[in-house]
Amino acid sequence: MITGRVIGEITATIRHPFFEGKKMLVVARTGADGAETGDYVVAIDAVGVGPGDPVLVLDEGNGARQVVGSATAPVRSVVVGFLDRVDLA
Amino acid sequence: MITGRVIGEITATIRHPFFEGKKMLVVARTGADGAETGDYVVAIDAVGVGPGDPVLVLDEGNGARQVVGSATAPVRSVVVGFLDRVDLA
Amino acid sequence: MITGRVIGEITATIRHPFFEGKKMLVVARTGADGAETGDYVVAIDAVGVGPGDPVLVLDEGNGARQVVGSATAPVRSVVVGFLDRVDLA
Amino acid sequence: MITGRVIGEITATIRHPFFEGKKMLVVARTGADGAETGDYVVAIDAVGVGPGDPVLVLDEGNGARQVVGSATAPVRSVVVGFLDRVDLA
Amino acid sequence: MITGRVIGEITATIRHPFFEGKKMLVVARTGADGAETGDYVVAIDAVGVGPGDPVLVLDEGNGARQVVGSATAPVRSVVVGFLDRVDLA
Repeated sequence: MITGRVIGEITATIRHPFFEGKKMLVVARTGADGAETGDYVVAIDAVGVGPGDPVLVLDEGNGARQVVGSATAPVRSVVVGFLDRVDLA
Repeated sequence: MITGRVIGEITATIRHPFFEGKKMLVVARTGADGAETGDYVVAIDAVGVGPGDPVLVLDEGNGARQVVGSATAPVRSVVVGFLDRVDLA
Repeated sequence: MITGRVIGEITATIRHPFFEGKKMLVVARTGADGAETGDYVVAIDAVGVGPGDPVLVLDEGNGARQVVGSATAPVRSVVVGFLDRVDLA
Repeated sequence: MITGRVIGEITATIRHPFFEGKKMLVVARTGADGAETGDYVVAIDAVGVGPGDPVLVLDEGNGARQVVGSATAPVRSVVVGFLDRVDLA
Repeated sequence: MITGRVIGEITATIRHPFFEGKKMLVVARTGADGAETGDYVVAIDAVGVGPGDPVLVLDEGNGARQVVGSATAPVRSVVVGFLDRVDLA
């Protein structure tokens, strides 16, 4: 899993029925210190987050399908949690 | 998923029957700001897009096979949607 | 598998029941020489390690699900061992 | 999938029966413009190509196993096609 | 698959029974020219190699599990062969 921050939302025309009503977020990846790394990912929202929110993203197909409750969903990245706190030692 | 822009098409001699009649696109990866990152991917077209179109690419084998409707397709990357809009916060 | 060092812990609000009671660690990746590479990963703890501990991380979904004993866990990275020693030739 | 050029062949002593009689190619990855990127991959030949040939490589385990016709083959990368032409827009 | 050179061995305390008696190698990745790239991976030994040996590593979970003969092994990288020769064109 990786940490990130929601920086936007994507609107796309997709024929596959899985995506109907799904929110697709642009998530900037963040390092352990919370700073953006310059990399980003498009992830399905499974939590109800919005712009600016720090999040936890699962970037693996089979696990992502478990989170969205569909064994056949064409998805790889999904926002699985709101990131409350990072405690660095 | 990643965002990109179709920059070309590939013609290849492939023995596997899955590829018959399939369009193989060269997709330049784009960042959250729409600029090309310099990376690219060869993806099967599942939407009907062409050169210059901004697209959404699923880059995961099992999900890609769901999109093309074949549990045995030797495919990893597939264009799943036309990218209408990216709203950055 | 990759080697790393636990540098912190994450607290997140996650709806998926798998994560209840699970410790989520921030693991800085380390090179063969033990120095941090600048990359990091968020991994579920399957061993009982803490800040500063050198660890072995499995970064693959299906194997990670075996380690946590759940075929449906939405997980990709898991700390599978405490790294006792690296003997370089 | 990625595009590349065959730059050599590998001879290895492998116990797993799948590799008997298989040709293992060193494929230099090429960019959309056909230039080598500096990265490379070792791929099983499923087409009958040789040094200098431009090729299409599938770099995903389950799809690669479909191409070689074995559900249990320990393989991730396979040359699936001869690259006839890349038309850039 | 990737090519590499064994540069060391790892000793770790792991609870999962799969790892009992398994040798875990530190493998420096090598380029097509045999030079180390600076990247490395921790891989299970399925061949019987040691420090200095040039090797072939399979870096994909499902294929790696086939090589070690266990459908449930929490493993991603495995040394599948001794690299006898690389013939560059």
